[in-house]
Amino acid sequence: MTISSLLFHCPTPFFPYKPTYNPFPNRFPTTCNLKTNIHLSNDYKLSWTYELKKAYGSQLSEHTSDNDDFFQDLIDRRGVDNVRMLIIDSVQHAKAGHPGMALGMAEVGYFLYRHAMRYNPKNPKWFNRDRFVLSAGHGCLLQYVCLHLAGFESVQIEDLKRLCKVGSRTPGHPENVVTAGAEVTTGPLGQGVANAVGLALAEAHLAARFNKPDAVIINHRIYCIMGDGCAMEGISNEAASLAAHWKLNKLILIYDDNHNTIDGDTSLSFSEDISARLKALGWNTITVEDIHLDMGSFQSALLSAYGETEKPTFIKVKTLIGKLSKKEGTSKAHHGTFDDDDVKQMRAKVNWEDREPFHVIPMIYRETQFQAELGESLEDWTSTLRKYQSNYPREYEEFKILIDGGLPLGWENSLPRWSKSDPLDATRGYSEKCLNRLVDVLPGLIGGSADLASSNKVYLNGHDDFKQPKSPYGRNIRYGVREHAMAGISNGIALHGSGLIPFAATFLTFSDYMKNAMRLSALSHAGVIYILTHDSIGLGEDGPTHQPVEHLAGLRAIPRLLVFRPADGSEVAGAYKVAVRNRHMPTVIALSRQKVAAHLDGTSADSVAKGGYIVSENSERELPEIILIGTGSELCLCEGSAERLRREGRRVRVVSLVCWRIFDMQQEDYKEHVLPRSVPKRVSVEAGSPHGWKEYVGMDGVVHGVEDFGASGAYLDTFKMFGFTEENVTRIAKSLLEK
Amino acid sequence: MTISSLLFHCPTPFFPYKPTYNPFPNRFPTTCNLKTNIHLSNDYKLSWTYELKKAYGSQLSEHTSDNDDFFQDLIDRRGVDNVRMLIIDSVQHAKAGHPGMALGMAEVGYFLYRHAMRYNPKNPKWFNRDRFVLSAGHGCLLQYVCLHLAGFESVQIEDLKRLCKVGSRTPGHPENVVTAGAEVTTGPLGQGVANAVGLALAEAHLAARFNKPDAVIINHRIYCIMGDGCAMEGISNEAASLAAHWKLNKLILIYDDNHNTIDGDTSLSFSEDISARLKALGWNTITVEDIHLDMGSFQSALLSAYGETEKPTFIKVKTLIGKLSKKEGTSKAHHGTFDDDDVKQMRAKVNWEDREPFHVIPMIYRETQFQAELGESLEDWTSTLRKYQSNYPREYEEFKILIDGGLPLGWENSLPRWSKSDPLDATRGYSEKCLNRLVDVLPGLIGGSADLASSNKVYLNGHDDFKQPKSPYGRNIRYGVREHAMAGISNGIALHGSGLIPFAATFLTFSDYMKNAMRLSALSHAGVIYILTHDSIGLGEDGPTHQPVEHLAGLRAIPRLLVFRPADGSEVAGAYKVAVRNRHMPTVIALSRQKVAAHLDGTSADSVAKGGYIVSENSERELPEIILIGTGSELCLCEGSAERLRREGRRVRVVSLVCWRIFDMQQEDYKEHVLPRSVPKRVSVEAGSPHGWKEYVGMDGVVHGVEDFGASGAYLDTFKMFGFTEENVTRIAKSLLEK
Repeated sequence: MTISSLLFHCPTPFFPYKPTYNPFPNRFPTTCNLKTNIHLSNDYKLSWTYELKKAYGSQLSEHTSDNDDFFQDLIDRRGVDNVRMLIIDSVQHAKAGHPGMALGMAEVGYFLYRHAMRYNPKNPKWFNRDRFVLSAGHGCLLQYVCLHLAGFESVQIEDLKRLCKVGSRTPGHPENVVTAGAEVTTGPLGQGVANAVGLALAEAHLAARFNKPDAVIINHRIYCIMGDGCAMEGISNEAASLAAHWKLNKLILIYDDNHNTIDGDTSLSFSEDISARLKALGWNTITVEDIHLDMGSFQSALLSAYGETEKPTFIKVKTLIGKLSKKEGTSKAHHGTFDDDDVKQMRAKVNWEDREPFHVIPMIYRETQFQAELGESLEDWTSTLRKYQSNYPREYEEFKILIDGGLPLGWENSLPRWSKSDPLDATRGYSEKCLNRLVDVLPGLIGGSADLASSNKVYLNGHDDFKQPKSPYGRNIRYGVREHAMAGISNGIALHGSGLIPFAATFLTFSDYMKNAMRLSALSHAGVIYILTHDSIGLGEDGPTHQPVEHLAGLRAIPRLLVFRPADGSEVAGAYKVAVRNRHMPTVIALSRQKVAAHLDGTSADSVAKGGYIVSENSERELPEIILIGTGSELCLCEGSAERLRREGRRVRVVSLVCWRIFDMQQEDYKEHVLPRSVPKRVSVEAGSPHGWKEYVGMDGVVHGVEDFGASGAYLDTFKMFGFTEENVTRIAKSLLEK
Repeated sequence: MTISSLLFHCPTPFFPYKPTYNPFPNRFPTTCNLKTNIHLSNDYKLSWTYELKKAYGSQLSEHTSDNDDFFQDLIDRRGVDNVRMLIIDSVQHAKAGHPGMALGMAEVGYFLYRHAMRYNPKNPKWFNRDRFVLSAGHGCLLQYVCLHLAGFESVQIEDLKRLCKVGSRTPGHPENVVTAGAEVTTGPLGQGVANAVGLALAEAHLAARFNKPDAVIINHRIYCIMGDGCAMEGISNEAASLAAHWKLNKLILIYDDNHNTIDGDTSLSFSEDISARLKALGWNTITVEDIHLDMGSFQSALLSAYGETEKPTFIKVKTLIGKLSKKEGTSKAHHGTFDDDDVKQMRAKVNWEDREPFHVIPMIYRETQFQAELGESLEDWTSTLRKYQSNYPREYEEFKILIDGGLPLGWENSLPRWSKSDPLDATRGYSEKCLNRLVDVLPGLIGGSADLASSNKVYLNGHDDFKQPKSPYGRNIRYGVREHAMAGISNGIALHGSGLIPFAATFLTFSDYMKNAMRLSALSHAGVIYILTHDSIGLGEDGPTHQPVEHLAGLRAIPRLLVFRPADGSEVAGAYKVAVRNRHMPTVIALSRQKVAAHLDGTSADSVAKGGYIVSENSERELPEIILIGTGSELCLCEGSAERLRREGRRVRVVSLVCWRIFDMQQEDYKEHVLPRSVPKRVSVEAGSPHGWKEYVGMDGVVHGVEDFGASGAYLDTFKMFGFTEENVTRIAKSLLEK
């Protein structure tokens, strides 16, 4: 075994190899052989001594610097002061923002970036970095300030000065697509916890699939800060339950127990014993009593977490919201600026009076640079990777495809095709075939259902369930009945940046449960594939509570989300083609429970990529009198009605509008070709809310949809009740033609 | 103190008064003086003995009937057999349904309806009844069968035969608007738990407000059955956390621990210690080990619950899913029919071979009738109420208004009016004024926010926080950051049927978190008022995670939900007028964070009731050249742009489309009057998704909306970035005019 393999293979950072030089031996066990020897030179100490005297005055004895440990502690405290001052300056400058949590958690933030996390600011996307998630996203200033001090190019002092300004790199909540160093997009509470579980799942899965005894290429931790709000949200309990079930021991959840939410003291609405709850879920739980006095207790908590081989760790850190301010310890500190007097007092408390706003003690950059250098040295990883490449070329190839985010050549060819003679199925059945072909050619495909694998038909046959430590390589994820966590976790998997292609399945109706997380998929460019079956009243007996009506409309309105409702096997395959290709855009594939009526002649996988297209018409030479526009299971109804009308001598075009957003993005002439203005007689047929259909049908057309909740009944009875029969569609078309 | 006061005042049912005759003294402590003396007559015993011999054959000694207690136990067991047979017959007949949970929980269902719950089948809406909620709604057959046996008219054998048929009273999941005896609509998992917490909150609140030492008119329990799915859903954890925080001791949550979900054994995805979790939340927790062998243990658990004066009770009942079937104990029993052989064997197991499907042992009706009679006798309540009326006329009047579901005469007059000279405010500010006036005149108004009371401006000044035991009369509900539970609890409050008018507030964006519960408000006719502030990108700095875009579109598409986006104080008042009146339809009132630009001349509270109306135009005599249609904070933009255009000689109409659904419901001629076909040049201005606007703007009009996610920035900068300025709207209108 080589050193570097030991290094990464070691499940905890208690690294048996003694590094050549560790400047703070008792502070934190280093996990690697430092590339550059760092030591506290006398000059360096001297510079700090001046600064520390300024901070602590007479408390500082002349022998302080003799004790490296204590000296480092003082440096850290001063670092935390600096973090707080930058937070205050930023809020005052922006006249906006949320300083409360950022001030209270300054020690945690600083300690993580200074001593705990492994990252490389020069390469923020370094694959094996530790991931940091700020689930309490309103505390983004803490992250921005830490990123700045840690040397990330993405947050300069100028960026701090542009906090919450249009176009800045420091928006009001962390956005991964805006600020390098932010792994995910947070703000809606609890989401980050689920994201973190997804990141940890990705790590565990990939480690199990790729690591070799002599070449450990995947081994990192996920740190997540959550607040009281995150703790109250159901999604965090769902995600935490799964994290423990999956034994994600690399996950460290740090709870900012500041006893305040926007409305006041948490005693208003929160009296549970949260540590006991997490323990009941299966977590290792630790409490840090007063981090403001003793950062060492936080270090001990981390060490306990590192020692865990099965349980994820929950660290409850008691803090004072708005630490330093007059508003300290009260919900008034949650957001908003401070009055001048308060700012003055806060500066005085840390002996910062004479400094300009946005001052940074120059040595702080050197401090965080130690950690950054550690990160850079960890990029020795690349040498491990090279070894991996030569020893395990086959695995390396797969791994390379993954982390490059590419797709294997010709993967599309694996998608099944259907011919007239194939048995008819529900579109969810066609989807099952697609998924099970794709899993063989796409090494990144991984996912599951919220306890509806058999109904959604998303089980990857021949693959195991993801389950630590039994089968962490498994690519079927069993989410249980936890839709919201499923979507949040899927975002985490997608944003792990390791080429994993997560899919998440439930009934279309229950997309309601995970809507905010789906929105965040779109906002954070997470290419999650949502497989939503039972996509209309056509699901039958389960009745209106399970029958989606307004859901397609609601999902179609989410910016940057692609919503497909394919009509047959060809269109299902086409939807997967687009979904898999769009690694930075989430996709919904809405699928029927009930069998569809035909393999249509005019559908094709390739046409789906245009969003809408002509499925059939009497003749290409003549414009139709009427256009029937359908999606999903109702496209066959359109086709059947069209045939009836054609038998009566009518010129009818049938159009599949399988994905509105993509159709909208087509050139005007193509859209005009499919839906010519000169044909105002149009009928849309979709067993869902009419909302939005006028856009395609026009003011003279008829939108045939479902205007009310559905009804419990056999599929055909329900469809009949709401007028989804060939007879009725033909009747509607005729009366429009006769107008 | 009178007997009846003692009866209801007693916090537990250990009633000190010895009833004249209790047929089963050791079985269950009766809680009241039975009106009719019931005793097991010899004839009655004889009839049962015949039946029980059939069931248990030689196991039945000839002295069995000497021991009333044991005899009753055997009767109960036979009752449970009958419940199971009816479940099986119904599923086989319907060729659909979910028998698994219903069979496993037959003992619990039967015991509750036979021994525990207080209800009156002849008056299912009797105010002081115990409430039963089946959160695991797919087990509805259990409830239908119990309702039938208990004598509810709503479920006849014919109804069981029409399970899951279009138009039947026995849909695939319980619907309160379809089946009397179903208190709420369940199916989407976890919702029922939140509903039950809402029902318990209503009970606790009303009891505190109205009960008098000598006239206790409100005192009932809420029983809720939940399954593994409910346990996993985040909403149930949120709701359970609140139930304990609020000390809702009348709430009894019965967890069907059958270790199976659709996808298989719960070990696939669920390994937490759920009782420990509930304990951590603050619940009294009890486990019933084998109810299939010993129903008495369930009785003991209930007695423990009744003894609780502060904690709600969680009873974990270990059951076998699909009890009796070959599929017993496996997820295969979850849904679907049984093969003939299985049915045969199940019938044989309970000696039911020679009986027709849907057979009911005639004496069972007599059994449940005992309980029904108890319920009827409890309606002695009405005499207590009469006493209450004479002793507390003022309180009685208020109480009467509430339970009659009416509204006090002239309540609308309390709504504030605004004049030009009043200071301008955000529409959330106008809403605050409305709410605080309404609370004085509407005794039923009660509600709160998901930790954004100060931002949503929904605090009812001068009222206390609802908090047991400190201030259970309080009408401000502190939900903490738990949107989903908030909405589910609000549904429970609304469907308590006691005239309470719940409102629930959060940011519009976070309606995502509670969308399914909002949908259920509409489906179950729960008149919840959703106050959703920060209703566009105009909220500014918090950025895209907090800025709603697609939300109005998504909510507008929900059937039967009224979505208002008022533009100024008058329209806010108008929205409340409609919202309060619609006690069986939920309402959304979307409100701005930022100040709106004017008190508009043309708006009025009354016009809001039409959904859309003309706000201003050059002259009523001439048709306009162009119509600007706006909502909310953008109506002022329309008005400002219209004035600019008018100054240039253009004829411009401004229309407020404050509630699409209501406008759609107007007569055609009114709609034509507001938006005449002859004026095809129309511009809609709404800082939200364009989705759906074409309906009103037409194919020749321009929809000016937000097509992408928003951006963090000052309100005016963000608005400018997306083109929401008078200049830009005027420009758009002009280029349309020049077309």
